[in-house]
Amino acid sequence: MKRGTPNAYRLGEIVARLGGDIIGDADLVVTQVAPLEHARADQVTFIASVKYRGKLQQSAAGAVIVGPSERDSTDKPRIVCTNPYAYFARVSALFNPMPIAEPGIHPSAVVDSSAIVPASASIGAFVFIGEGVELGENVVISPGCHLGDNVVLGEDSFLYPQVVIYHDCMIGSRAILHSGVVIGADGFGLAQDEGRWVKIPQIGRVVIGDDVEIGANTTVDRGAMEDTVIGDGVKLDNQIQVAHNVHIGDHSAMAGCVGIAGSARIGKHCTVGGAGMILGHLEIVDNVNISSGTLITKSIKKAGTYTSAMPFSSHPDWLKNAAHLRHLDDMAEKMRLLEQRIIELERKKS
Amino acid sequence: MKRGTPNAYRLGEIVARLGGDIIGDADLVVTQVAPLEHARADQVTFIASVKYRGKLQQSAAGAVIVGPSERDSTDKPRIVCTNPYAYFARVSALFNPMPIAEPGIHPSAVVDSSAIVPASASIGAFVFIGEGVELGENVVISPGCHLGDNVVLGEDSFLYPQVVIYHDCMIGSRAILHSGVVIGADGFGLAQDEGRWVKIPQIGRVVIGDDVEIGANTTVDRGAMEDTVIGDGVKLDNQIQVAHNVHIGDHSAMAGCVGIAGSARIGKHCTVGGAGMILGHLEIVDNVNISSGTLITKSIKKAGTYTSAMPFSSHPDWLKNAAHLRHLDDMAEKMRLLEQRIIELERKKS
Amino acid sequence: MKRGTPNAYRLGEIVARLGGDIIGDADLVVTQVAPLEHARADQVTFIASVKYRGKLQQSAAGAVIVGPSERDSTDKPRIVCTNPYAYFARVSALFNPMPIAEPGIHPSAVVDSSAIVPASASIGAFVFIGEGVELGENVVISPGCHLGDNVVLGEDSFLYPQVVIYHDCMIGSRAILHSGVVIGADGFGLAQDEGRWVKIPQIGRVVIGDDVEIGANTTVDRGAMEDTVIGDGVKLDNQIQVAHNVHIGDHSAMAGCVGIAGSARIGKHCTVGGAGMILGHLEIVDNVNISSGTLITKSIKKAGTYTSAMPFSSHPDWLKNAAHLRHLDDMAEKMRLLEQRIIELERKKS
Repeated sequence: MKRGTPNAYRLGEIVARLGGDIIGDADLVVTQVAPLEHARADQVTFIASVKYRGKLQQSAAGAVIVGPSERDSTDKPRIVCTNPYAYFARVSALFNPMPIAEPGIHPSAVVDSSAIVPASASIGAFVFIGEGVELGENVVISPGCHLGDNVVLGEDSFLYPQVVIYHDCMIGSRAILHSGVVIGADGFGLAQDEGRWVKIPQIGRVVIGDDVEIGANTTVDRGAMEDTVIGDGVKLDNQIQVAHNVHIGDHSAMAGCVGIAGSARIGKHCTVGGAGMILGHLEIVDNVNISSGTLITKSIKKAGTYTSAMPFSSHPDWLKNAAHLRHLDDMAEKMRLLEQRIIELERKKS
Repeated sequence: MKRGTPNAYRLGEIVARLGGDIIGDADLVVTQVAPLEHARADQVTFIASVKYRGKLQQSAAGAVIVGPSERDSTDKPRIVCTNPYAYFARVSALFNPMPIAEPGIHPSAVVDSSAIVPASASIGAFVFIGEGVELGENVVISPGCHLGDNVVLGEDSFLYPQVVIYHDCMIGSRAILHSGVVIGADGFGLAQDEGRWVKIPQIGRVVIGDDVEIGANTTVDRGAMEDTVIGDGVKLDNQIQVAHNVHIGDHSAMAGCVGIAGSARIGKHCTVGGAGMILGHLEIVDNVNISSGTLITKSIKKAGTYTSAMPFSSHPDWLKNAAHLRHLDDMAEKMRLLEQRIIELERKKS
Repeated sequence: MKRGTPNAYRLGEIVARLGGDIIGDADLVVTQVAPLEHARADQVTFIASVKYRGKLQQSAAGAVIVGPSERDSTDKPRIVCTNPYAYFARVSALFNPMPIAEPGIHPSAVVDSSAIVPASASIGAFVFIGEGVELGENVVISPGCHLGDNVVLGEDSFLYPQVVIYHDCMIGSRAILHSGVVIGADGFGLAQDEGRWVKIPQIGRVVIGDDVEIGANTTVDRGAMEDTVIGDGVKLDNQIQVAHNVHIGDHSAMAGCVGIAGSARIGKHCTVGGAGMILGHLEIVDNVNISSGTLITKSIKKAGTYTSAMPFSSHPDWLKNAAHLRHLDDMAEKMRLLEQRIIELERKKS
């Protein structure tokens, strides 16, 4: 695995590749990205908000990426662009490309003879590739990965070590799957029968679009009868559970520890904060943001931000207040009765 | 791994195997199960509730499994039985049996010479099997699994790729363990000593009954001094954490992302919804249902359903309401004072 | 892997090694630790609190570890010490040492020629060790582990099967990492650009101190530009997610299913109960205890215990009370109006 020395780039070369305007020395050479506080003279940083203007003054960074509003807030050589944070991400990708794996199949790998493995693919040690698997050009399958029968994986996809993909699942191009990801395990399909659980075979697949990244130890279950579907450009963080038959729309993103129950349908361009939980058989429209720690119990039909988190407090304060949570109905009833007594008093008064 | 072409069955053959009554053409051949909306003429579907009667009218399914109440709600060939959903599960298992793995030991597997491995067992590539392991007939150990010393695994059990079972753990017959499952890791046993943590060796085991299924990336810790015990017929979904010394009673089921803290004792026939959390050292009787997102903080002595979820709302509404959660005690006190003033007014009145 | 028969120790030998005073027969031989209820005559137990004094009377244990206050509450041979629970942990470690793995490299392991692997190290089957890896003396790398390029792992560290450590991460001495742990996967770093997510390369590392234990399937992400840092003596349970750039102070401990969002800074000697969630970009001082199921949404500047859990109740009671949670603001407003009417009545009265 070659991670290669980061190259050095002149600001002019960066702008030639990624657009934007240079103010100051276009020949300045930078070798890496760095945060405002710790950037050195041979590094480039960025500010995405006016509130970091103060820190920018003190930064030792050689160059900075700024938005139009910060065009003149520094004397440093700078690149002006409309979205400094996204621009910065692209500059960082120039300096820090995905590692390059040597093409070829490690002698310890077990690859079924029916699998399609392009010469450009890199298959690591202890990899198992089942019957009928189809790999795209330049895929990297790191050591210890398991691809079940008939898995399809699109070009330029990168599997970190010890990813498991069950049989028949399909993953698009440029996927990044981190270690411990399990795609296509059986959904939790059970029928009750006289106090015992009868397993319902899970015969759907997982179908994942292009440009999807899935974090470490995240699980996406196969569909019960139809497919679990993850759209293009979806980004899932670590330790997420996506249950059977869920649909996640294009370009939605979910932070760590999220759970999505069976048959939920999440729209496009949604976000779910850490540990958000979405119950099953409900529908969430496009452009919905679920706050961290929020439990969604019914469909959401209108774009916007939704929250259910209980505010924390010191434990003694919590004890005092939480006791009333079990008596809110009594409290409301008591208030109704007080009002009646007030009405009675008012009536007598008049 | 052979998943085999689904067989075709005549309705009459299905009923001969699984019971129930046929109304209509017993010679109709079906080849797969499918949901109401998408079933074709060569497929069998089911309805478990009268509310789907309308969809049944429109379904193209060749046959349908119905309960007694829906006996006459369609003209299609149908199987009438008492529990259509469980019946459907069994029909699906006819069409979609567990995959059949070739018996034998893959040449890359490392199997200790003291291990008992029946000729009917299938041991995949890169499997590690320690000293004194005992495998039952027909077990399938998929590639990359690890069975520590003295593990016992009952007949017909199926381990998907990359399951880890630590030393001395015992698992019954017909278990299904999905990828990333870790059985028998150390429980979180620590003693405080002058601000430092001293590890308490975890010397118990995990003992799991028959007919247990455990979902991807779920972890079950070994007992501290005695065993962690999971009863017969228990079903655990993905990403669940079962801590040391927990007991889970027979035929209980838990959805994804559940956490059970140390030494909790869960009864039989319980269910826990997604992301439910159960604290340690408490007892839950049989037939308790914990709702999704609910935190159980003390023992439950009576069967029934229990809930603690905070309802969600739009973020602006939440902001308005949540602020009061930290002041419920003030609110209750204020109400008490208002009532006193009303009493005073009423006293003066009379 | 040798777990070895537990040795027998005379009480006198134990005290010679670990300190404390013996009352009674110093030559009594014990062979294992056990809980009060089930200890036998050749086993040693402990009581950490006066409330177990009754159980101690009935215990068949041969010997007991007690604190000064329980010095005379039994006739059994006993060891008196200041912290019986921590003492018990150390006695248990005498009887149950970490397993001893044979030094050497399993022939199936793939170890880069540039890696530093001491002769005392044990490298299991199917292990992958990348370029420039440095292992300390006596490390145990169990089967199926993956150490990416330039990983550094301190002496006496023990990796259970199927741990993944990404490139460049550093782990101190005496670490214990359980199966399914993933150290150094990419953090969730994304920039929005016209409705699409642009990946921000994660170029920091994970740097972990000495004496750290990490539970099964826990994930610790590498830093975005700088490092994710875990201090000395930190203990993490199973299924925890630690996001990029998090700092966890020395000797803090976190129970199962906890999530720590990006750039959170947790102090020393903190604890987080099961399923606690800590949002990103906030700071928690030393000696803070977060209760189970609690969501921390802003910095905590004062040591103490903090809680946000919603109390559970039977589902019908919950339905009754939860409905009001969405109307607390109305309720407060109503109370204000009632008070005004009371004031009016009082005014008229006087």
